[in-house]
Amino acid sequence: MTKRLGILTGGGDCPGLNAVIRAVVRRAEFYGITIYGIDDGFKGLAEDRLRKLCQQDVSGLLPRGGTVLRSTRFNPFKEAKLVSRCLKTISKHKLDGLIVVGGEGSLGIGLDLFEKQGVPVLGIPKTIDNDVFGTEYCVGFFTAVQTATEAIDRLHTTAESHNFVMIAELMGRHCGYLAAYAGLAGGADYILVPEQAICIDELVRSLKERHKSGKNFSIVAVAEDARLYDAKGKAIVRTPTLQDEYGHITTAGAGLKVRDLLVKKLGFEVRLTVLGHIQRGGSPVAMDRILATLYGCEAVRLASEGQFGRLIAYDSGRVMDKNLNIIHQGVKRLSADFFEVAATFFG
Amino acid sequence: MTKRLGILTGGGDCPGLNAVIRAVVRRAEFYGITIYGIDDGFKGLAEDRLRKLCQQDVSGLLPRGGTVLRSTRFNPFKEAKLVSRCLKTISKHKLDGLIVVGGEGSLGIGLDLFEKQGVPVLGIPKTIDNDVFGTEYCVGFFTAVQTATEAIDRLHTTAESHNFVMIAELMGRHCGYLAAYAGLAGGADYILVPEQAICIDELVRSLKERHKSGKNFSIVAVAEDARLYDAKGKAIVRTPTLQDEYGHITTAGAGLKVRDLLVKKLGFEVRLTVLGHIQRGGSPVAMDRILATLYGCEAVRLASEGQFGRLIAYDSGRVMDKNLNIIHQGVKRLSADFFEVAATFFG
Amino acid sequence: MTKRLGILTGGGDCPGLNAVIRAVVRRAEFYGITIYGIDDGFKGLAEDRLRKLCQQDVSGLLPRGGTVLRSTRFNPFKEAKLVSRCLKTISKHKLDGLIVVGGEGSLGIGLDLFEKQGVPVLGIPKTIDNDVFGTEYCVGFFTAVQTATEAIDRLHTTAESHNFVMIAELMGRHCGYLAAYAGLAGGADYILVPEQAICIDELVRSLKERHKSGKNFSIVAVAEDARLYDAKGKAIVRTPTLQDEYGHITTAGAGLKVRDLLVKKLGFEVRLTVLGHIQRGGSPVAMDRILATLYGCEAVRLASEGQFGRLIAYDSGRVMDKNLNIIHQGVKRLSADFFEVAATFFG
Amino acid sequence: MTKRLGILTGGGDCPGLNAVIRAVVRRAEFYGITIYGIDDGFKGLAEDRLRKLCQQDVSGLLPRGGTVLRSTRFNPFKEAKLVSRCLKTISKHKLDGLIVVGGEGSLGIGLDLFEKQGVPVLGIPKTIDNDVFGTEYCVGFFTAVQTATEAIDRLHTTAESHNFVMIAELMGRHCGYLAAYAGLAGGADYILVPEQAICIDELVRSLKERHKSGKNFSIVAVAEDARLYDAKGKAIVRTPTLQDEYGHITTAGAGLKVRDLLVKKLGFEVRLTVLGHIQRGGSPVAMDRILATLYGCEAVRLASEGQFGRLIAYDSGRVMDKNLNIIHQGVKRLSADFFEVAATFFG
Repeated sequence: MTKRLGILTGGGDCPGLNAVIRAVVRRAEFYGITIYGIDDGFKGLAEDRLRKLCQQDVSGLLPRGGTVLRSTRFNPFKEAKLVSRCLKTISKHKLDGLIVVGGEGSLGIGLDLFEKQGVPVLGIPKTIDNDVFGTEYCVGFFTAVQTATEAIDRLHTTAESHNFVMIAELMGRHCGYLAAYAGLAGGADYILVPEQAICIDELVRSLKERHKSGKNFSIVAVAEDARLYDAKGKAIVRTPTLQDEYGHITTAGAGLKVRDLLVKKLGFEVRLTVLGHIQRGGSPVAMDRILATLYGCEAVRLASEGQFGRLIAYDSGRVMDKNLNIIHQGVKRLSADFFEVAATFFG
Repeated sequence: MTKRLGILTGGGDCPGLNAVIRAVVRRAEFYGITIYGIDDGFKGLAEDRLRKLCQQDVSGLLPRGGTVLRSTRFNPFKEAKLVSRCLKTISKHKLDGLIVVGGEGSLGIGLDLFEKQGVPVLGIPKTIDNDVFGTEYCVGFFTAVQTATEAIDRLHTTAESHNFVMIAELMGRHCGYLAAYAGLAGGADYILVPEQAICIDELVRSLKERHKSGKNFSIVAVAEDARLYDAKGKAIVRTPTLQDEYGHITTAGAGLKVRDLLVKKLGFEVRLTVLGHIQRGGSPVAMDRILATLYGCEAVRLASEGQFGRLIAYDSGRVMDKNLNIIHQGVKRLSADFFEVAATFFG
Repeated sequence: MTKRLGILTGGGDCPGLNAVIRAVVRRAEFYGITIYGIDDGFKGLAEDRLRKLCQQDVSGLLPRGGTVLRSTRFNPFKEAKLVSRCLKTISKHKLDGLIVVGGEGSLGIGLDLFEKQGVPVLGIPKTIDNDVFGTEYCVGFFTAVQTATEAIDRLHTTAESHNFVMIAELMGRHCGYLAAYAGLAGGADYILVPEQAICIDELVRSLKERHKSGKNFSIVAVAEDARLYDAKGKAIVRTPTLQDEYGHITTAGAGLKVRDLLVKKLGFEVRLTVLGHIQRGGSPVAMDRILATLYGCEAVRLASEGQFGRLIAYDSGRVMDKNLNIIHQGVKRLSADFFEVAATFFG
Repeated sequence: MTKRLGILTGGGDCPGLNAVIRAVVRRAEFYGITIYGIDDGFKGLAEDRLRKLCQQDVSGLLPRGGTVLRSTRFNPFKEAKLVSRCLKTISKHKLDGLIVVGGEGSLGIGLDLFEKQGVPVLGIPKTIDNDVFGTEYCVGFFTAVQTATEAIDRLHTTAESHNFVMIAELMGRHCGYLAAYAGLAGGADYILVPEQAICIDELVRSLKERHKSGKNFSIVAVAEDARLYDAKGKAIVRTPTLQDEYGHITTAGAGLKVRDLLVKKLGFEVRLTVLGHIQRGGSPVAMDRILATLYGCEAVRLASEGQFGRLIAYDSGRVMDKNLNIIHQGVKRLSADFFEVAATFFG
């Protein structure tokens, strides 16, 4: 019987993690299960840093961004002894299961712990990239889309007032969900994503036409990993010289590249805004609070029935669970259909 | 071949209607279809008030709340001559189809026009109540949930500072989606909806226990049509004497009733806030802008293929179309599962 | 030398109170002063309920609405023994001074304690009504104006979509600051305040003209204590029959009266929204956080120099202190100049 | 008698410009004055591009960010013939006066037109930097502070969740108002402004102490022009090599420099977010809408009385006018008093 569960948050933080933690603790009381919060993701698991969480500890957490358990990108499978330390912590505290709230990376570690080490693991998908396979929505995505959309709304007024081509660089490693959703919602005139490589000369030509037809400004939403190629079909890579004197690369990704190319080829005033970390912070919007709460409650319900090795997911209008190994199918990519609709509004 | 389409918005306004209109006009250009905007819902259709909408007319509409076509609750089927006037307008302007953006009521009128009069109709579901059968989400719901959640967040600080029992009355005729979602997201301590009748004495007992256990405030989210019964199981109806001197009933629904009963039976300070019309106003949140855009584009695509009598819907993670007569299956009700999760956080 | 200070919050809560408390505790450390937080306003002072506040207690308070010390409308001067209990608490804990964060009422109590009982008191003005004499701005006002303005923005979209006359009732006892500021910022077409009595027939005539000239909706911002008179110049009082079956008056003030009169005399669709408690809740806007912080720091600085009987105020672009007895000059009223500018936009 | 007035917006755009334009047009009707909107600032004046603005043109402008008249940094005094073209436009259209809405630069041009060319000019101060001499507040500042504060709020949750030192770079050429206000309101742990040069080694030492004392994250708000010096008192200049391959400097200012130095000297994880253009965009907050409206109305009132060569200003709790040559006194700097209070919360 499930009596004691651990919970950890891994990878980059996002809005709604605290809401998951709160839901897990509140729902666990219903089943008479005790929850142990593990600090700093898998690092805290390896280092035996955990503490009992009671109702009072999670009071007020629902609307708070980030994670009170903190988060790291630590991977215990990099060293055998780290894995055994994780197992030791689990056995020492007699944890009957482990809830891993994470993106692709952390859920993969969770799956390995389940498959290779027999740890009873449940996965809850969270990431502002929304790219975890098997679920329509990950915790944090709704809020990131809203924040990025509001930022693009703000850029509109400046672009209009100054006849600027305004580039907004959005987060999204290997995946264009955030850029495409926020670009569509923010009324961007062009959206560049990793899933749809674009010829820079095509973009230049299209921007020139747009401005010739009477529009005097443009908004270009660019995913940090957007793919570009030149007129000869050759991929344009990011400039390595963008490192600064200490060898640190700047925070800008593809947006910086696009800006430089447009400045060179376009002849209009071009401005770049890199939204950066503000996209992952702040109080979760209502839908993320709800998703986080439903996910947390469902994970505890499954644990109470002794079901592990499952991924909590949103599918077909409801919260359900799937085999955790579904994440082996890779990352979810933005559908061509969605992009085709978004392209209706280009130009 | 589809050359000319009319579009109207019916019923109560909500955020995202303008985004639908914009998407329809922008997508129609892609297929070479001309769009005619009909003012004031079916009233304008009966009165032959429509105008061609071009790209310039919809510029800037994406983030604007409400509907530039305005909306009424006019039903032409109340009089035979009104129906024939609607048909006359359609034939006079050679409309190849009619896009009806509405809730249960307006979509029902659209369905009747399609089934009984042969008008080629497409339906797009919108309502902050989210109760249209056959779709997970209706345009406007995401924004209403967010607005109501932020309002409940605000009430929290006052409730805490003054040891109040704070009642928030939310919209929702016959249906508790908005109250349940915003109540869950806003961290309400109790949620009262039409789908789950509640015994007022149970609520009183539970509130007393909560305050005895150390909590010094409570938030109660109440749908305007929440159902209550007394200790003997008898339904508590709203007081007819709540009309004012001119015979107008006040804007408050079940919330006022709950307040009066709690004041009488509880002994704590009780305050009521009726959120009212602010729940249906304002700029649509990102997810409503996206849903509205996808719905509008899909409706035009179907029309371009000569497909009518369809409801645009969101189901299983994507936009699709269903037979418009699905709305005969009644209104969608909040699921017992969702309410059961929400109840985890009661008390 | 000042070593120990008490702080309490009195009257209705508002955004920024927690920011004041945090600033007081943080600044006090700079001078080596210990701060004691008194719960529930003057009630806690009479009942000897106070606790030492250290830096950790105020961590995270800056953006939080409400007051962690809670607040009541308790007045110890209603009974002699309550005053002596307050004095006893002060002497028992060797408080060298008392910081009273309050509106007109609480500051008046503070002044009485200072003048009649010799308690070293400092006053910090807070109220969403902004009516404390001697200061341009009170803590909480900026946030309430912003919240109410956003609510009026939301009502705009519904009013436009439905050809409604939309009445928004705003808080403001005896004073029209909030209604006038939010009405002006929200683009209200008429603003009714206590400082400028209005003839209801004039309003009706003006609304009719506005709609005749082509506008199909109107927004009327009404302070809860707005003054009305009829065509004969007779004051229109609120209807006593608006009490409900248990004798509780509804939360609506003048707005309800205006609605009923407009419904009777106007012939357009009229809707009323009573903003209610959401106006006093939520996270303080930046300017309230700044004002609260400056006020709190200045109060501690004065206390460190042994200066008491002072009101912290904002005047001529900076924070300063004035004799606390300035509040005897009554409440601050909205200036006729401001109203005259607002009236530019009427009709 | 004043019959015809021109209005232009110059320099960088900011929230509230449209609200000024609307107020000017609405108030002018009151005096029977006709308003001509001049496109693209002084450039449009030189190129004779202006158009009559009527009430309908300004309907809906109050909440809209940016400026429908658009704005440029064009200075006609760079060439004698440009000045004469400006004068020709004014005389051709028989303008009795010119309202210049701008910051230090545009107001300076306006003053030169008034003093050297006899053009009847009125100045309305606007800038998110808030550095125009002679007025407490410039249009746009309140909104920029709010936007930047919300961004810093968001960074907090990520900083806390990951033990980051998070640097937020804010706008502010030569002046630290925005960084200091938003830093104070956002609860920044350190604020770096141009007015108060800081030793980078002091900052490093202080950050190390803070983290040693148990805090595991820090927020550093940095004005783009913040001044730094090294342990020997030598000014640290921005690295010229930060230009990219096309010779464009990156958008980052002092924030990038601070990041690089902290990465080198600190040993904690450091992240930089450059807020950029989102700080100047978006719908104006209530206080900016009010300020803009009061300024616009006052300018028209002065013009109606034939008073020119004046700067509209906010001083001592009310809107007033001052001699426009007050701007010769230079830019307004953040007061040492304000910084001293802000420093209470450092560390």
